[in-house]
Amino acid sequence: MAELDSQPNDNRTAAAASEFPRPDGRLPGDLRPVRFQNHIAPHATGSTLVEWGNTRVICGVTIDEVIPRWMKEQGVPGGWVTAEYSMLPYSTHQRKPREVSRGRQEGRSQEIQRLIGRAMRAAIDLRKLGPRTAWVDCDVLQADGGTRTAAITGSYVALALAVQKLRKEGLLKESPLLAQVAAVSVGVVAGRVVLDLDYPEDSSADVDMNVVMAGESNFVEVQGTGEKGTFDEACLNAMLASAKAGCRSLMEAQRAALGEA
Amino acid sequence: MAELDSQPNDNRTAAAASEFPRPDGRLPGDLRPVRFQNHIAPHATGSTLVEWGNTRVICGVTIDEVIPRWMKEQGVPGGWVTAEYSMLPYSTHQRKPREVSRGRQEGRSQEIQRLIGRAMRAAIDLRKLGPRTAWVDCDVLQADGGTRTAAITGSYVALALAVQKLRKEGLLKESPLLAQVAAVSVGVVAGRVVLDLDYPEDSSADVDMNVVMAGESNFVEVQGTGEKGTFDEACLNAMLASAKAGCRSLMEAQRAALGEA
Amino acid sequence: MAELDSQPNDNRTAAAASEFPRPDGRLPGDLRPVRFQNHIAPHATGSTLVEWGNTRVICGVTIDEVIPRWMKEQGVPGGWVTAEYSMLPYSTHQRKPREVSRGRQEGRSQEIQRLIGRAMRAAIDLRKLGPRTAWVDCDVLQADGGTRTAAITGSYVALALAVQKLRKEGLLKESPLLAQVAAVSVGVVAGRVVLDLDYPEDSSADVDMNVVMAGESNFVEVQGTGEKGTFDEACLNAMLASAKAGCRSLMEAQRAALGEA
Amino acid sequence: MAELDSQPNDNRTAAAASEFPRPDGRLPGDLRPVRFQNHIAPHATGSTLVEWGNTRVICGVTIDEVIPRWMKEQGVPGGWVTAEYSMLPYSTHQRKPREVSRGRQEGRSQEIQRLIGRAMRAAIDLRKLGPRTAWVDCDVLQADGGTRTAAITGSYVALALAVQKLRKEGLLKESPLLAQVAAVSVGVVAGRVVLDLDYPEDSSADVDMNVVMAGESNFVEVQGTGEKGTFDEACLNAMLASAKAGCRSLMEAQRAALGEA
Amino acid sequence: MAELDSQPNDNRTAAAASEFPRPDGRLPGDLRPVRFQNHIAPHATGSTLVEWGNTRVICGVTIDEVIPRWMKEQGVPGGWVTAEYSMLPYSTHQRKPREVSRGRQEGRSQEIQRLIGRAMRAAIDLRKLGPRTAWVDCDVLQADGGTRTAAITGSYVALALAVQKLRKEGLLKESPLLAQVAAVSVGVVAGRVVLDLDYPEDSSADVDMNVVMAGESNFVEVQGTGEKGTFDEACLNAMLASAKAGCRSLMEAQRAALGEA
Amino acid sequence: MAELDSQPNDNRTAAAASEFPRPDGRLPGDLRPVRFQNHIAPHATGSTLVEWGNTRVICGVTIDEVIPRWMKEQGVPGGWVTAEYSMLPYSTHQRKPREVSRGRQEGRSQEIQRLIGRAMRAAIDLRKLGPRTAWVDCDVLQADGGTRTAAITGSYVALALAVQKLRKEGLLKESPLLAQVAAVSVGVVAGRVVLDLDYPEDSSADVDMNVVMAGESNFVEVQGTGEKGTFDEACLNAMLASAKAGCRSLMEAQRAALGEA
Repeated sequence: MAELDSQPNDNRTAAAASEFPRPDGRLPGDLRPVRFQNHIAPHATGSTLVEWGNTRVICGVTIDEVIPRWMKEQGVPGGWVTAEYSMLPYSTHQRKPREVSRGRQEGRSQEIQRLIGRAMRAAIDLRKLGPRTAWVDCDVLQADGGTRTAAITGSYVALALAVQKLRKEGLLKESPLLAQVAAVSVGVVAGRVVLDLDYPEDSSADVDMNVVMAGESNFVEVQGTGEKGTFDEACLNAMLASAKAGCRSLMEAQRAALGEA
Repeated sequence: MAELDSQPNDNRTAAAASEFPRPDGRLPGDLRPVRFQNHIAPHATGSTLVEWGNTRVICGVTIDEVIPRWMKEQGVPGGWVTAEYSMLPYSTHQRKPREVSRGRQEGRSQEIQRLIGRAMRAAIDLRKLGPRTAWVDCDVLQADGGTRTAAITGSYVALALAVQKLRKEGLLKESPLLAQVAAVSVGVVAGRVVLDLDYPEDSSADVDMNVVMAGESNFVEVQGTGEKGTFDEACLNAMLASAKAGCRSLMEAQRAALGEA
Repeated sequence: MAELDSQPNDNRTAAAASEFPRPDGRLPGDLRPVRFQNHIAPHATGSTLVEWGNTRVICGVTIDEVIPRWMKEQGVPGGWVTAEYSMLPYSTHQRKPREVSRGRQEGRSQEIQRLIGRAMRAAIDLRKLGPRTAWVDCDVLQADGGTRTAAITGSYVALALAVQKLRKEGLLKESPLLAQVAAVSVGVVAGRVVLDLDYPEDSSADVDMNVVMAGESNFVEVQGTGEKGTFDEACLNAMLASAKAGCRSLMEAQRAALGEA
Repeated sequence: MAELDSQPNDNRTAAAASEFPRPDGRLPGDLRPVRFQNHIAPHATGSTLVEWGNTRVICGVTIDEVIPRWMKEQGVPGGWVTAEYSMLPYSTHQRKPREVSRGRQEGRSQEIQRLIGRAMRAAIDLRKLGPRTAWVDCDVLQADGGTRTAAITGSYVALALAVQKLRKEGLLKESPLLAQVAAVSVGVVAGRVVLDLDYPEDSSADVDMNVVMAGESNFVEVQGTGEKGTFDEACLNAMLASAKAGCRSLMEAQRAALGEA
Repeated sequence: MAELDSQPNDNRTAAAASEFPRPDGRLPGDLRPVRFQNHIAPHATGSTLVEWGNTRVICGVTIDEVIPRWMKEQGVPGGWVTAEYSMLPYSTHQRKPREVSRGRQEGRSQEIQRLIGRAMRAAIDLRKLGPRTAWVDCDVLQADGGTRTAAITGSYVALALAVQKLRKEGLLKESPLLAQVAAVSVGVVAGRVVLDLDYPEDSSADVDMNVVMAGESNFVEVQGTGEKGTFDEACLNAMLASAKAGCRSLMEAQRAALGEA
Repeated sequence: MAELDSQPNDNRTAAAASEFPRPDGRLPGDLRPVRFQNHIAPHATGSTLVEWGNTRVICGVTIDEVIPRWMKEQGVPGGWVTAEYSMLPYSTHQRKPREVSRGRQEGRSQEIQRLIGRAMRAAIDLRKLGPRTAWVDCDVLQADGGTRTAAITGSYVALALAVQKLRKEGLLKESPLLAQVAAVSVGVVAGRVVLDLDYPEDSSADVDMNVVMAGESNFVEVQGTGEKGTFDEACLNAMLASAKAGCRSLMEAQRAALGEA
């Protein structure tokens, strides 16, 4: 089991923190501690339980030796990566009814799983994956803000573990992984840019942004929303800078969990 | 038709075991090892991860301070206990599609969750529970046979933990728990009665029975099915004797997990 | 049309009856009268209307000259038997909304039709049936307790009629029937074991058990539930003895309906 | 049980019949025999099994002492009549899958049940019915053409039986029935107008019309469709004349079944 | 019951009109103005926006170079025409929730689209269409009575435009069109037969009839319903005469829209 | 009817254009022409048909004098704005099956309508709107890239028209509008940042970004996705600059359509 605490982010000062303390005492640019408990679901090809502050997500990657019908019909070469996201009923303070109870997925879940799928496809060369489908399943065990960024950051670890396994079994000669992918949220809370919002911060944020990076300087997704207000270019740039630093720390934690540190 | 020499589980001998070894080396009357990892889902009122051999089930009990509409309308006093059961997609060797994908629950899931609900209602005095609903959620993380009996045995622990919490918070003056509830499977495999079937045994069993007990000598449910044959009364009695012994061992493990040993 | 009243069960005494009269005057071990009205649905391959006290169920068996896709894919030889169960809206005192209105089947219906399917598969040698599917449809016209046992007992008659027809048409050279299958309920009402519960008894039973038998001494299914209490081994044995006697009487009635008496 | 054969229709000649014999030997203006078996579903307020040639439909009317929400909200006085129509799986030569299996009703079923509902509302004064809902359920046991006209003709009998029961119980002081309602099909087959098409005729008809009448000379519904061709005014008039005569015979049969002959 | 003095539509006089003015000043036999705005949806093979008084319907015909599976399986030669009908949410005074919100189509929509499909199939020789499917989509932009007749009348124009396009592209050597198809409503309002009911008239009509014609004297569909009463043969004949005259005017407008005037 | 062509965007040079011509001859920073045809759906409170190049979207805003249940339950003051998005079946080159056919909305539609809803809520002061719901319905009549940005830009016009109407009717004393909201896409195609991608460009874009602005310098949403690659900060800044200029041109066109130019 790979376990480590992520390193605190650098761009902060004790002064700033004492002026505007965050609910859990973090500085504006601090991440919550992140740990990975690998192989949580041994029947999956790769799996990890990511614990990120009080947010916990089970990420399982299962490799299926078939490709989707549309790929076959259109003759697209290589493989595919697709994701599903769900919140377990006991993950929230008020029990969350299962989506199957009303017979369909919520829009929010669909939006998040489409995001996870795109993020994971940015991590991998689909041609090198070969004619396989990687199912990425993310089930939230405990929700305290940032479940989608935890799902992406954990899914990369599970995907890399699945790739390791396929290589050990001789099913893949070279690694199809293109870049390390991690994600973090950043937002404006009480007039200040803060990194990695927990649930109370997320609920009161004026602006909320999720940033997915592939490697140290490239963006896969930038999704900023003015929930309670709008934001100008200066604010956007400050958020991006903080998110970049956060993703770099997360990638370090991922590498440690994968034994690549 | 399985008309068999059914050895009762406590009369076993090393000789018998060496003659007919089970896939994992167990004797006919042996349980697989059982462990409980409590508080796996801290937002639930009570929760545990039950690991039973290679079967792992998350059991979460969430107390909701309302009662179902039908109870209100019919003026039924007290509270209610209801259960939901689901297999996570990475719990099986072949990925299992989420039920929400086809918009409805499978018959098997519904049958199991109705069984879990009845079992838990046998553990508790609904009047003493007060006007509350206990939602029992069971999500299978890894499936290797006996997921329904693991779900019941784990749910009792989660339910007892939830009761402990309500009592600590002063919401319950006395415990509504009536009896300790545990469940185990028993069956006829290769002409012999065996306790606690794992997946390979379950797949080849001629007869399969699930037994739910409340306390040391009373049955809540007895569900025996001749999957590939039928069974006579002698066989039924041998299975019941083995299941009884199994449930007693499980109750010991539950008490230990609850600090009541 | 084959019509006969089933013979009363033997294990009773006038004394016992006078002490605790049942709502309709039956003794503890008495069945309600059972009649079969064959060929109720002439487009089915075999059909019967079973009238069992005030419970009436239409049982239709339709033979389809194809097998399910999973059998083809897995190369399983022989045929298949599957069942569907539904309550017609006017079968209950309060009109029961059709399941299609809410777009899905209730858990209870699914559980019952799975039980009927297993029971019918125990009656027949699937290899000898040949590459065919037998659809067993049970629609409850009037419900007064015991609809699932009436459905099973009637379905066997409909299945045997369908087999007779296939044999007459030369589609089956030998009968694939293995054993006669019948089912009955038994329970504990007001502290006493009673056979074949009607609706008022079923509603107040402490323990409820459904027993399916194949032939005179073998069980296919034993499903005992402590609805309002639990039950010990002595009680279980008393229930099984009563159910066995009941099934034997039912099998006599089936044979008469099939002209095999 | 009220049983009678309907009288053959008058407007025919032996000559015409010998020229173009119909599949079952009927003359162009002949109805198939019609019988009603009342009280087939004793838990309904009124019920009948209508047997019309080889078409058999169970018609059940259940009175519910509530009105639909939209009537309450809009303050509409009186009661409501609504219908549901379904074909049982064994009613057709090829087994017909249950609509619940695909989670929704077919368009054809919805269209027919809307027609039955309108027809029944023409039979009754909704104000005099009082604040009640009459659920009209029609389940086809055997289909051989004309299931919708059999459903309407049988539903009127079931509705009248339900009204009789409410009056006996003192719930209705005067009868809310306005007019006797019956329905019949008529069409153009092989260039000739024929009454009451059976399945083979219906399949080959160029024009198909369903006529619902309230009393001897008034139409409730006229639904004519050129399935394989079109029709001119002369043809329409010939069809209407034949249908009128047919409905009159059916009303006689209804009155006999209701003991009003 | 409406037993009425039904004035035929061509015998009207200014006097009659002034006596019983219609809500919008029309005479009993007057149509509302009808206009076609072709090519409203350029990605469709043929399309038109029909504006008929205040009713506006988008009619799009898309040709798909495949045939339905049932045609392939049954070896039916030629092509197919099928229709879908929907009301846009802003088409009614009170916003109409989308059908997808409740997961299924209303019975009314299904009934109308089945009618449109039958009407369009009467316009075309399916064999000459060749192995293609013509999807007829009708979306109501504004509803003021007569949406189904506007949909049919507009769909014929869209279908003819699609045929023109296929012929220009050389995909069809000869026109498969058999007859011009148009539809109009007619009814009894305040004791008088009126043509082409708008929404207020439709809401208060005693009798409502939709007539679909193929060419000047042949009917495809006649659907008359006594919504609030019944109707006798004289009334039916008066309605048919008025509808015939209306359809002839509509066919003139269609020809003008198609440049065939 | 307000009709105008939007002004071409400034930041371009003839040189750049001649080097890399876009499919339709536009310069990298050019918008396609935009026109609004107001009052397309007169039953809506406000409506417009936005034609943006070959993309055409019907935007209808209907005001409902109620608020959602969750607002009532939580006592949230003011009103609500919610959106629904759908593509009409004839909007695409290949007919797009209606979502109701499979019983549920696609994830893409849900994601887009959530985006439209958030964008419109940024345009309006929900407290000043009063206890009302504004339903924003967007139906795509023709799709050629940028349907979501056309939907947002058109919806603002429809919303402003609805507000105008409420003010004329005296239902709103002051305008609840906070800021003008418009949206545009920008992306990287063939290595170059281009504004307002049409369908062929969108299909081949490496990076795709949708930008929603409220007023001239504030962002409501920034959603950038590396579809086929990733993007660095310099690229992000170039895209934002182009999108800003595009939104300013669109706001001019909106003001002209609203008679506020």
